[in-house]
Amino acid sequence: MKYLKAPLDRIVATYLIETPLPIDQAAAVLAGEQSSGTFVALPGETDELKHQFAARVEHINELEAVDIPSLPGCRSTKNANPVFRRAEICISWSTANMGRNLATLISTLQGNLYELSQFSGMRLVDFDLPHEFSRHFNGPKYGVAGTRAKIFGTGDSEQHANRPLIGTIIKPSIGLLPDQTAEMVRVFCDADIDFIKDDELMCNPPHSPFEQRLSAVMRVINQHADKTGKKVMYAFNISAEIDDMQRHYDLILKHNGTSAMISINSIGIAAAKKICDHGQLVIHGHRNGFGMLNRHPLLGIDFRAYQKMQRLVGIDQLHVNGIANKFWEPDDSVVRSIKACAESYGNGQPILPVISSGQWGGQAFETYRLTQTVDLLYLAGGGIAAHPDGPAAGVKGIRQAWAGAVAGLSSEQVMAESSEYRRAVEKFGKR
Amino acid sequence: MKYLKAPLDRIVATYLIETPLPIDQAAAVLAGEQSSGTFVALPGETDELKHQFAARVEHINELEAVDIPSLPGCRSTKNANPVFRRAEICISWSTANMGRNLATLISTLQGNLYELSQFSGMRLVDFDLPHEFSRHFNGPKYGVAGTRAKIFGTGDSEQHANRPLIGTIIKPSIGLLPDQTAEMVRVFCDADIDFIKDDELMCNPPHSPFEQRLSAVMRVINQHADKTGKKVMYAFNISAEIDDMQRHYDLILKHNGTSAMISINSIGIAAAKKICDHGQLVIHGHRNGFGMLNRHPLLGIDFRAYQKMQRLVGIDQLHVNGIANKFWEPDDSVVRSIKACAESYGNGQPILPVISSGQWGGQAFETYRLTQTVDLLYLAGGGIAAHPDGPAAGVKGIRQAWAGAVAGLSSEQVMAESSEYRRAVEKFGKR
Repeated sequence: MKYLKAPLDRIVATYLIETPLPIDQAAAVLAGEQSSGTFVALPGETDELKHQFAARVEHINELEAVDIPSLPGCRSTKNANPVFRRAEICISWSTANMGRNLATLISTLQGNLYELSQFSGMRLVDFDLPHEFSRHFNGPKYGVAGTRAKIFGTGDSEQHANRPLIGTIIKPSIGLLPDQTAEMVRVFCDADIDFIKDDELMCNPPHSPFEQRLSAVMRVINQHADKTGKKVMYAFNISAEIDDMQRHYDLILKHNGTSAMISINSIGIAAAKKICDHGQLVIHGHRNGFGMLNRHPLLGIDFRAYQKMQRLVGIDQLHVNGIANKFWEPDDSVVRSIKACAESYGNGQPILPVISSGQWGGQAFETYRLTQTVDLLYLAGGGIAAHPDGPAAGVKGIRQAWAGAVAGLSSEQVMAESSEYRRAVEKFGKR
Repeated sequence: MKYLKAPLDRIVATYLIETPLPIDQAAAVLAGEQSSGTFVALPGETDELKHQFAARVEHINELEAVDIPSLPGCRSTKNANPVFRRAEICISWSTANMGRNLATLISTLQGNLYELSQFSGMRLVDFDLPHEFSRHFNGPKYGVAGTRAKIFGTGDSEQHANRPLIGTIIKPSIGLLPDQTAEMVRVFCDADIDFIKDDELMCNPPHSPFEQRLSAVMRVINQHADKTGKKVMYAFNISAEIDDMQRHYDLILKHNGTSAMISINSIGIAAAKKICDHGQLVIHGHRNGFGMLNRHPLLGIDFRAYQKMQRLVGIDQLHVNGIANKFWEPDDSVVRSIKACAESYGNGQPILPVISSGQWGGQAFETYRLTQTVDLLYLAGGGIAAHPDGPAAGVKGIRQAWAGAVAGLSSEQVMAESSEYRRAVEKFGKR
């Protein structure tokens, strides 16, 4: 796949397409729809206007052809036995088309083009912005280094930089009272966890009102920090209507919390950016709903492009699924996502990838082998809460596994030395 | 398709699924993921907690089976020749799981479930909320009647209620200067148009700064209103970051505008609701990007469910595509969308369906025959701007077609009587 760098004054995007038309003709349709945009030639569409504002086809790389269209509704062929050609194409727009406007950027990159009947497949794979455009956006304020500093203090974070951050999700997702949640947090803190989060289904229900849960949890975390110097990061799910999110954000600050979680797809980009722009809390970006945008290979958006949008928004930590996850996504896709998060882009601050979904210590070895990085937030929900010897043993088993993986040991070697990890393998390794 | 009504204290959703598992087993997985939610049984998950918070499978209707999975990544079968069964299933949740929180509702209805490897197809078809839940949301404030009243005045709007509102999109989408846009608006006003909108790609670019365009356009519209008593509605595209949207909203009010447009999918639900809740402007909801969520038949969301979310947000006018459109969507789907907008729901105010995409007068006959309603906002962009005798003739031709369609005339009969419509047929009818 070819990813074009944006020239000085143009935005460039790469699409994977499928069409029964000649590729250059189909690409021209896409470019037309997403700039001057209507179904007939127009009187006001002068050559000068077209020259300045029309989208341009920059590059075409034809791929395989198939007999069966990937998506329904492709009407642009009268051929009884059409062939559907796949290609990656790069389209560019002048930055003058949109100003520094994230919404217009998204409507341009991901607007009506998915509806076009000239295509039987349409997926945004990547995009690139000129520096003059992307520097308008703050980008992730904390990212990898800022998250570590918030937990360990700026001075001490270096000494923990050789391992991933280990975290958990409060489970069961729904139903625990604030004091029960805080009690679980105490157990996790005692087990030396780094990070805890609400489930995405838990925000402000009647049985666990946001401020009560926040207050109960932060009492435990602040006490633990006073005692140990380590401030466990708790990402409180503030996802809601804007005014409620702002109120929740301020409450977290008031209780000396360090992080807020948002379900990016459920609240949307504009609200997410507003929250990130405050810049006082580390923002944990949950991507629930992403499968809808990503699971079909010829529709929607690749994670590569998705995470770039989240960097413009200013998300610090972004979910990437995990190796051997309980979901549909294959490992190679997860690995690509983790690597995309680490790339330099825009203001240069990498985003911290959040590993989750069916994780326990067992995946540490393969995760490290495939990514060779410890700049990860490694989350286990059931993998900690359901450890046969309790959550503290769950946390310890994962830390043992990661220490072993980074030291070059095998799972079997760690099992021989570490009882919590061995017990985890006995329970979770048989699935 | 069975659409369940929500009982008193539960939210109910209908999904179209595809799975190699027995349907009841797959449905239970979905219900589990979207309530207590992890991959193993948990110590804290008491029977009482489960009884109160677990999602319930309410109804299963098994459909056809297929040999080839619709989506990749389905891992839950070891059968060498698996069969993938389709079904519609209804799942319910206690309202106690989420409080009155739109973001949590969306994460519950449309969250991680698309990722589940037990499914090879997953689509949210419909949902229903108990009245106690939905009445928390304002709903569309203006909708059909409010839009008419803003244009014609409360006293006069009745006399125009027997025909659709006719509108246009400023084309070319991008490149016109504010004064050029205003000059087009003057031509449209003189042609007795009802509604005009910015293209979704046009918000606040350097060559047409928002306030300059607004000011130039509203001068024309206000003059026309002073002269005729009719206030043509112009939906200015305010889609941007939240603070900019708020500022643009206030500017529209200051210039005596009556409507703002938002690209719902580009800004997201939380920002959209914040804008709608102000309640002073009619909100035109553009659905660009919807194809990504909707085009694959076994992924994403049906328009039926999508428009219900937009009603909770408070959108007054919502795009539904059009008959014989230039996009992929078949007519029967468009007709279902138009009918869904007219249904009573929540606070009872119907949403005004916006017909667009390759429209000119020619589709009036079929649109009316299939929907039997005139509660429509009928938009033509190129169909007006590219009329062989100019935009004024374009508007007139569409009005003639609609008057004829409502009076029971055929296209040929209107052609015989109305020169502007006949000229439109000569140009657009040959496509």
